[in-house]
Amino acid sequence: MPDLKIAAIAGSLRRDSHNRWLLAASQELAPEGLTLDLISLDTVPLYNMDLESDYPVAVQEMKDRVIASDGVLFAVPEHNYSYSGVLKNALDWGSRPYGKSCWDGKPVILQSAAAGFMGGGRAQYHLRQVLGYFSMKQMYFPEVFVGASHTKFDAEGKLTDEMAREAIRKQLSAFRDFILGGRA
Amino acid sequence: MPDLKIAAIAGSLRRDSHNRWLLAASQELAPEGLTLDLISLDTVPLYNMDLESDYPVAVQEMKDRVIASDGVLFAVPEHNYSYSGVLKNALDWGSRPYGKSCWDGKPVILQSAAAGFMGGGRAQYHLRQVLGYFSMKQMYFPEVFVGASHTKFDAEGKLTDEMAREAIRKQLSAFRDFILGGRA
Amino acid sequence: MPDLKIAAIAGSLRRDSHNRWLLAASQELAPEGLTLDLISLDTVPLYNMDLESDYPVAVQEMKDRVIASDGVLFAVPEHNYSYSGVLKNALDWGSRPYGKSCWDGKPVILQSAAAGFMGGGRAQYHLRQVLGYFSMKQMYFPEVFVGASHTKFDAEGKLTDEMAREAIRKQLSAFRDFILGGRA
Amino acid sequence: MPDLKIAAIAGSLRRDSHNRWLLAASQELAPEGLTLDLISLDTVPLYNMDLESDYPVAVQEMKDRVIASDGVLFAVPEHNYSYSGVLKNALDWGSRPYGKSCWDGKPVILQSAAAGFMGGGRAQYHLRQVLGYFSMKQMYFPEVFVGASHTKFDAEGKLTDEMAREAIRKQLSAFRDFILGGRA
Repeated sequence: MPDLKIAAIAGSLRRDSHNRWLLAASQELAPEGLTLDLISLDTVPLYNMDLESDYPVAVQEMKDRVIASDGVLFAVPEHNYSYSGVLKNALDWGSRPYGKSCWDGKPVILQSAAAGFMGGGRAQYHLRQVLGYFSMKQMYFPEVFVGASHTKFDAEGKLTDEMAREAIRKQLSAFRDFILGGRA
Repeated sequence: MPDLKIAAIAGSLRRDSHNRWLLAASQELAPEGLTLDLISLDTVPLYNMDLESDYPVAVQEMKDRVIASDGVLFAVPEHNYSYSGVLKNALDWGSRPYGKSCWDGKPVILQSAAAGFMGGGRAQYHLRQVLGYFSMKQMYFPEVFVGASHTKFDAEGKLTDEMAREAIRKQLSAFRDFILGGRA
Repeated sequence: MPDLKIAAIAGSLRRDSHNRWLLAASQELAPEGLTLDLISLDTVPLYNMDLESDYPVAVQEMKDRVIASDGVLFAVPEHNYSYSGVLKNALDWGSRPYGKSCWDGKPVILQSAAAGFMGGGRAQYHLRQVLGYFSMKQMYFPEVFVGASHTKFDAEGKLTDEMAREAIRKQLSAFRDFILGGRA
Repeated sequence: MPDLKIAAIAGSLRRDSHNRWLLAASQELAPEGLTLDLISLDTVPLYNMDLESDYPVAVQEMKDRVIASDGVLFAVPEHNYSYSGVLKNALDWGSRPYGKSCWDGKPVILQSAAAGFMGGGRAQYHLRQVLGYFSMKQMYFPEVFVGASHTKFDAEGKLTDEMAREAIRKQLSAFRDFILGGRA
């Protein structure tokens, strides 16, 4: 079985972000043959076309790692009924020169942790329009929405909710098959 | 006639941004009784909840000026089939503490300049969902979409397209009435 | 206190539709001074511009009753991650001649009953774009999403879930104030 | 080269619908190896779950033909800033029993003719969320938007605009490759 590497990006800069914690859980729960490469956005600056001629090193690194991956996993915070500005900022950078877009055609899945009962739905459905623009290969199901997320992690940031853990296991397993199937 | 002040924010950091230029045109074309307060996002940092306890001065200033305004005008860039991360980042900041959200209930209009023929439509329709979350009073029409924007400004950034200029005149005039009507 | 009449339309033709039942509950729970006029879509045909010259009586009646109302309440089924075709069909008819659109500028609220945990969110957020086109006065909050709706009604179609009942009470009460405030 | 059959559905009942005319143009412009099966919605009734036990013959036929196809082409009218109720109604029917959904996993493309300058964009982007729910294999580009459509056809309904004709040619050609590539 090939070893697939998934570029995993949480759209939040908060140290104790629930969406970062989701990716930590995903790293723990990933099936054999699938490894997560956690890419932090901490040093990615705000997008500014004037900076493209002096391309930020942090963005270069993000893009290199995404391009080297077999697929992408976004942990998508919902802020104000859509995805976070922080996440979109990274997507905007990734789509602009330093060679080429790092997103185009990559297989992709989404996860969200959010306080509300929709668990990030409004954010993910907006994001899917952007992913479509990149012609990313979206695996639509199973979806992962961790609602009421303040009740689903322990003090150390470990995902303790068994239903959420199972949802992640199933999604990552299906994603492995989805990537391999697309290659067949 | 009362003098209305409109907080005007372009969602781009590029120096020669077409959306900044739209606001400059709007400032020139605004009807009597309506003045634009151009708020730059140049020094607004990326949103991070951990920074809320040490609230960025640039965001404080943005919020103070929006709160002091009678309405808001966003110049909305379209990046990757949605609004820019830079703009959403400012909206996310504005919705978070340092007192309260600066957006809630404000009258609001949108303008976009974009290279494509849709002129920013995909960006504006996503943004409207966010504005709804803030219960902002959206004036829906007339809409201002300046497509093929690279052909509509001169080298100094002056909007030269007469149809676009007229659309802005009409929108700002209607916005003045919309705000005053909402107060009656 | 004025007596406000709300045109209430469920976007489903099923006899035992949970969204019809929501409107029955709303009728029961409406505050003093607010009455629901339940408009069935049973006899509204599929929209066809060629029929406009021989305007369907059922549509005439729907439009007359909406125009005579002080506001509109849609019970919005979610089918396939958006609103139902049946509901949109009625909206399309209402926007076309026999005088004029019946929707423009009316105050409006939404409710949904749906099997999934999002309770109809994907349907309502798409619908809001249509309502914006009509410049309807949307009251955004409180939202009413009755998820897992198969567990929330009894065999006679009575809404038994107390949280859902309270949500409806609050929404209708707020809507009365919203309409009266808009008139002040 | 295999002969691919594309189920082609226009979301309008109007006899002289521009979206029907788009499909006629597509039939004429289709590349070798790709044939359109034009499926009319004229006799598809409004969706009602109570009718599922006495499944409408017109819907059976629609579903049979879609299932027998190698891909789907929707001509998507824009009504009131979203897709038409008539089209969504057909999608809702197709997703419901008489065996199974006819949409799931099918390759799909979109075309629109519309009076406005966006050419149906608002309709197509809403529709894509529905297609995602069906896990349809969306080919995102090239997009086909025929704006100002009243100027692009002759009196017999022939698409005369050469740019639009070329866009359709390119899209159908790419779709053939997309379907064959997905099978490889």
